Amino acid sequence: LPYTEKTPSIQLKAKSTVNIKYDFSPAKIDEESFPFLVWRKIAKELIDESNSSLLQSGHPQGEIELRTQIARYLYESRGIICDAEQIVIGSGTEQLLPMILRLFDHTPRLALENPGYSPIPRVHLQNQAIPIAVDDEGIQVDQLEQTDAKLVYITPSHQFPTGAILSAARRTHLLSWAMADQGRYIIEDDYDSEFRYIGKPIPALQSIDKAERVIYMSTFSKSFMPSLRVAYFILPHSLITKYKAVFSYYACTVPRFDQQMLSEFMLQGYFSKHLNRMRKIYRRKHDKILSIFEKNYPEVTISGDMAGMHMLISFKHSLDEQLIKEHLLKKHIRIQPLSQYTINKKENTNPSFILGFGGIPYAEIDQAIHQLMNAIYETT
Amino acid sequence: LPYTEKTPSIQLKAKSTVNIKYDFSPAKIDEESFPFLVWRKIAKELIDESNSSLLQSGHPQGEIELRTQIARYLYESRGIICDAEQIVIGSGTEQLLPMILRLFDHTPRLALENPGYSPIPRVHLQNQAIPIAVDDEGIQVDQLEQTDAKLVYITPSHQFPTGAILSAARRTHLLSWAMADQGRYIIEDDYDSEFRYIGKPIPALQSIDKAERVIYMSTFSKSFMPSLRVAYFILPHSLITKYKAVFSYYACTVPRFDQQMLSEFMLQGYFSKHLNRMRKIYRRKHDKILSIFEKNYPEVTISGDMAGMHMLISFKHSLDEQLIKEHLLKKHIRIQPLSQYTINKKENTNPSFILGFGGIPYAEIDQAIHQLMNAIYETT
Repeated sequence: LPYTEKTPSIQLKAKSTVNIKYDFSPAKIDEESFPFLVWRKIAKELIDESNSSLLQSGHPQGEIELRTQIARYLYESRGIICDAEQIVIGSGTEQLLPMILRLFDHTPRLALENPGYSPIPRVHLQNQAIPIAVDDEGIQVDQLEQTDAKLVYITPSHQFPTGAILSAARRTHLLSWAMADQGRYIIEDDYDSEFRYIGKPIPALQSIDKAERVIYMSTFSKSFMPSLRVAYFILPHSLITKYKAVFSYYACTVPRFDQQMLSEFMLQGYFSKHLNRMRKIYRRKHDKILSIFEKNYPEVTISGDMAGMHMLISFKHSLDEQLIKEHLLKKHIRIQPLSQYTINKKENTNPSFILGFGGIPYAEIDQAIHQLMNAIYETT
Repeated sequence: LPYTEKTPSIQLKAKSTVNIKYDFSPAKIDEESFPFLVWRKIAKELIDESNSSLLQSGHPQGEIELRTQIARYLYESRGIICDAEQIVIGSGTEQLLPMILRLFDHTPRLALENPGYSPIPRVHLQNQAIPIAVDDEGIQVDQLEQTDAKLVYITPSHQFPTGAILSAARRTHLLSWAMADQGRYIIEDDYDSEFRYIGKPIPALQSIDKAERVIYMSTFSKSFMPSLRVAYFILPHSLITKYKAVFSYYACTVPRFDQQMLSEFMLQGYFSKHLNRMRKIYRRKHDKILSIFEKNYPEVTISGDMAGMHMLISFKHSLDEQLIKEHLLKKHIRIQPLSQYTINKKENTNPSFILGFGGIPYAEIDQAIHQLMNAIYETT
């Protein structure tokens, strides 16, 4: 009897040596509202002998079923028109962005938002990427035009980490920049587009691009599960032939059973239900935080709070961001200073922190914010 | 009621447009003997609210529980002494090898077996890698010594694709090469080490390396499931500091629930049971194939059959490998010619094919081999 049905209880060990009570990291999601019941049911149904062909390697671009669901979802939610053949599934931005860069014969000069989401430049591009300043309308396209960049990587729906939403004027300007020269492309990372609290939804750049100059990227990390590691990009038709030539021997990095599970979750309508539910939950957390600051800490400036799962809190007086970060860790609170994502930081900027609220349970928000603020003021 | 327990039947669409009846690809595993019952049970137990912290991002090197199980397994099965801190988990060789290369300040010259497992050089290194010839004792270390390579990537347990096992003399020679100069490392991909049919097991190079010059790699693709995309490398202590500096912002690409499932599968003893079972199944397939060729096709030379899930079949007369491959596809048979993995192929080599037998059900082996051979001879 090699495979018995004995059921020992599964005990997980402690995950981390640092004991964190309140984690304001922007990558955290709400843990309380995850649809474990449905997810387990789908897993149970799919992990079955009748699907034994899923044990073998799959399509290099990812499962056709999942790509079909993604195309449908993007059409309905973001006005994006694409077919499954244009979609490439992978394990995250860090893994997909280098793939995009390899589609160009000579590694093109890449411009990045500053401050910006930066694991990629940190790891791969330290000395080559061109930082472009960001203000409250998003990336400063004027500055981009002064460079020799061929590619620009942006987070227009909720700029990371400032939270700015790229304005309509800047969007038009950016598309003009792309069309003004051969071989210019915009990599649109539609980060946090699922959650919008204030103002009208702005269509994705990809959906208004008539010239095939936008490579759209997104992920299920915020909208579903960070640890599932499912992200994707959409290639313009003009880049598909090149993709197939370069990556013909490539194996998609996401496990096939997980891809099929997610595809079923979407097909059966659970994903849109989940998103609707999460929108309410995050909006409630968002509103609660704003009201706590308004009532108790009017001296703190809040920005970047129109969308997504983090906002920026800024202080008028001078504070040592790094010192505060370390002091907070001793108090079991984790928060990231803005400077962590900034290249060539100016001296006089107001000290700011990225307040990710996705992972803080609603019932603990009051306590969490007060403990955070007390600990910050202890250092001054 | 956003999450009901309705149970629509899950129907998967056809996976491929080419209808393949017999697939001799070396990456295929046996589908009939996969322990779906246990795997589903573990999934059911782990996908639970009590594990909601697993939704968030995990350790960059992978789950500590899985790394602990891997260290234990490697000690018991391969004599490898390492601790979990040295192990880095990722989605496959294609993804992990570039990570290893980034640990060196100036991209080091990399030598590769020729013929060899080549998705990496094909994708990343086309013009930089140094091909080193392979004979029936494995890579020719003499040739390696004539180059300026700093790194060498080898598959010593069952060379891909020739099937050679690196001899004891060559192993010693290779370790001497590594120690003869600063900064030389051997990347030991222990591919197919789980399945050995003839001769004594040879210890891993890593286990006899006293100088910390071996970076060990392996995968669960052959021993468990190709589509799970779990592989790993073990760093010598001397490279860990550098790894932590370069990859501090990196997220492990393997989903955490899958890592925990695999870890439980190993912890509860199912993995070693599964391996023992698969060894019998593959040995039975292996022996059957040898006897079919001996009886019916004595003109075919078989090599590389001492281990693993593929062997090499070679013909004495001249055949066009590519032409045969295409003809076979029309007959719904997939097989890869040796030349597909060879750089600078010589004209007079005997035409050879890689006969992967993992995915052919035992009951169909007779038919599969006869149809393969008939179709090959049809072209001559």
